[in-house]
Amino acid sequence: MPDDSRPADDPLDVLALGSALVDVLAHASDEELDKVGLTKGSMALVDLERSASIYGSMGPGTEVSGGSAANTAVGVAALGGRAGFLGKVADDELGEVFLHDIAASGVLMRRRHVAAPAEGENGATGRCLVLVTPDGERTMATHLGVAGTFATADLDEDLVASTQVLYIEGYLWDAPEAKSAIRRAVEVAHAADALVALSLSDPFCVERHQREFLGLLHGEVDVLFANEEEVRLLFGAGTFDAAASAVEETGVLGALTRGAAGSVVVTAQGATAVPAAPVDAVVDTTGAGDLYAAGFLYGLTHGQDPEQCARLGGICAGEVISHLGARPQADVRALAAAAGLL
Amino acid sequence: MPDDSRPADDPLDVLALGSALVDVLAHASDEELDKVGLTKGSMALVDLERSASIYGSMGPGTEVSGGSAANTAVGVAALGGRAGFLGKVADDELGEVFLHDIAASGVLMRRRHVAAPAEGENGATGRCLVLVTPDGERTMATHLGVAGTFATADLDEDLVASTQVLYIEGYLWDAPEAKSAIRRAVEVAHAADALVALSLSDPFCVERHQREFLGLLHGEVDVLFANEEEVRLLFGAGTFDAAASAVEETGVLGALTRGAAGSVVVTAQGATAVPAAPVDAVVDTTGAGDLYAAGFLYGLTHGQDPEQCARLGGICAGEVISHLGARPQADVRALAAAAGLL
Repeated sequence: MPDDSRPADDPLDVLALGSALVDVLAHASDEELDKVGLTKGSMALVDLERSASIYGSMGPGTEVSGGSAANTAVGVAALGGRAGFLGKVADDELGEVFLHDIAASGVLMRRRHVAAPAEGENGATGRCLVLVTPDGERTMATHLGVAGTFATADLDEDLVASTQVLYIEGYLWDAPEAKSAIRRAVEVAHAADALVALSLSDPFCVERHQREFLGLLHGEVDVLFANEEEVRLLFGAGTFDAAASAVEETGVLGALTRGAAGSVVVTAQGATAVPAAPVDAVVDTTGAGDLYAAGFLYGLTHGQDPEQCARLGGICAGEVISHLGARPQADVRALAAAAGLL
Repeated sequence: MPDDSRPADDPLDVLALGSALVDVLAHASDEELDKVGLTKGSMALVDLERSASIYGSMGPGTEVSGGSAANTAVGVAALGGRAGFLGKVADDELGEVFLHDIAASGVLMRRRHVAAPAEGENGATGRCLVLVTPDGERTMATHLGVAGTFATADLDEDLVASTQVLYIEGYLWDAPEAKSAIRRAVEVAHAADALVALSLSDPFCVERHQREFLGLLHGEVDVLFANEEEVRLLFGAGTFDAAASAVEETGVLGALTRGAAGSVVVTAQGATAVPAAPVDAVVDTTGAGDLYAAGFLYGLTHGQDPEQCARLGGICAGEVISHLGARPQADVRALAAAAGLL
């Protein structure tokens, strides 16, 4: 992994800004979800004690690197793009796992984002407990740990100024000091003519930060990723079509996912539906939105039109939901090429 | 997890004694194996520095609890048996993962086997780097860490005296202080009329400890698990049949695995071949021998004859090689019942 003195060799296609997390995945029944008080399909923020309590009740786990924006960066790199990641881990075993995996995936991340481990809530590398029900749906409980301390001082402004797209996960608004860092990153990116992309991440995340997310759509965000529920909540819209119209009015490029129904691209020319890629069996939906964004942004930074971008997103999402874990296991570049998209 | 003051609620079917390890699995090509100097299909013991160097060259990983004997204990529990495990982890994040998974699998392990983490070679929880080639074969590099410090003081003699079978992995002979602990455990087990089972673990392990393993077959070991190469090396036999005859002469019950060709059970009545369970696609052979032993020992402690034991072993091995990782993911009890073996 490069140290801080070395600049990026080449400009990046996508620089992803988000929480660095290691996922702990386990199969669970709907009853077990109820028992630990988690809402199916959502991401709950939990403190250290609750995280330990939920973990204690979970079945045998599989640990894999995760973090929404980090997954997107890995997807961009898997397609052959140049990707970087900004986020914080601790100098502990799970931090080592995260750093290893991000580097082994070809994503640029710098040593300065490794904090000394400390006692208490913010001391360790963040972990996301992922309970996968038999229908393939994932329900998450995240303890942010040191990922929750990302602040303006953690920005690499030179990296932000050298990317085509700055991609920010909505989850990051849950980190108390991250907001000023995000604001500064958006300024630097726009000054360098980069696009700024935002993912709404999760319906509860939209409820927590609705006003701020809406504000960002007026001049700060150029590309918006959201699923159906998130975009409806954002605009308080009764129907998906009303939400899509609201996106169109803001003038941002909208990439709105609808699960098995595919996605809808919203441009100044209106909305276009794009079907999902065929999937044999949905094993675990963890990372579906993250990998959709990866495919979409790879396309966007390689001269593809929005509809092609959405198809590429669908292929990456289809790969990641066909196995346990939120990062690609098959050769997504080959899958995209087979579909005539590369 | 029970603390040390609490005795086992019930006598155990199988108490497994071995190295507590967390596996780090990654896909690798044959060329990548050569580059890091590992011999395909084998387990190499590596120091901390070499472990870090191999890890650095590995692709993105998946972390799952492992350890040969621990996998066997988990398999016995998955079949509905009462299983315990003796082995040491450190009080660190990978140790926490190991403890969580063993408890979540229903295997008894006690708090006294958690050591304070320390600097240097023996300070951390052991890890096994597992490189899985496209043919499904696994090649391992193990850094034992604190697992290499298992000693007589770490024995729970009350547990050893309350199990039907004491199962010992051959790998444990690589831990310098483990030999006297094993000798004592065998004494206690036999005094309590328990059977002692030994797995030869790995061809290189047989080469390292051949004389001691041979010595154990005269009065100390009652059940021997080995694959074809291991048993031939043990007896210096030119053919499998000669090795099987040598097992028969020792008077131990032999369970000899031959990969896709199934297994051969050796009793005082001679050798009986048992076919392997059908497997759609071999994904990762990690844990095949461990889970074969689990099925076999579950059968042995539940009144089944040796041939039935071998069939049950084959079903468990077939399940574990059909996915990444060395512990069962499907309901092996249901698979065994479907095959008419429970």
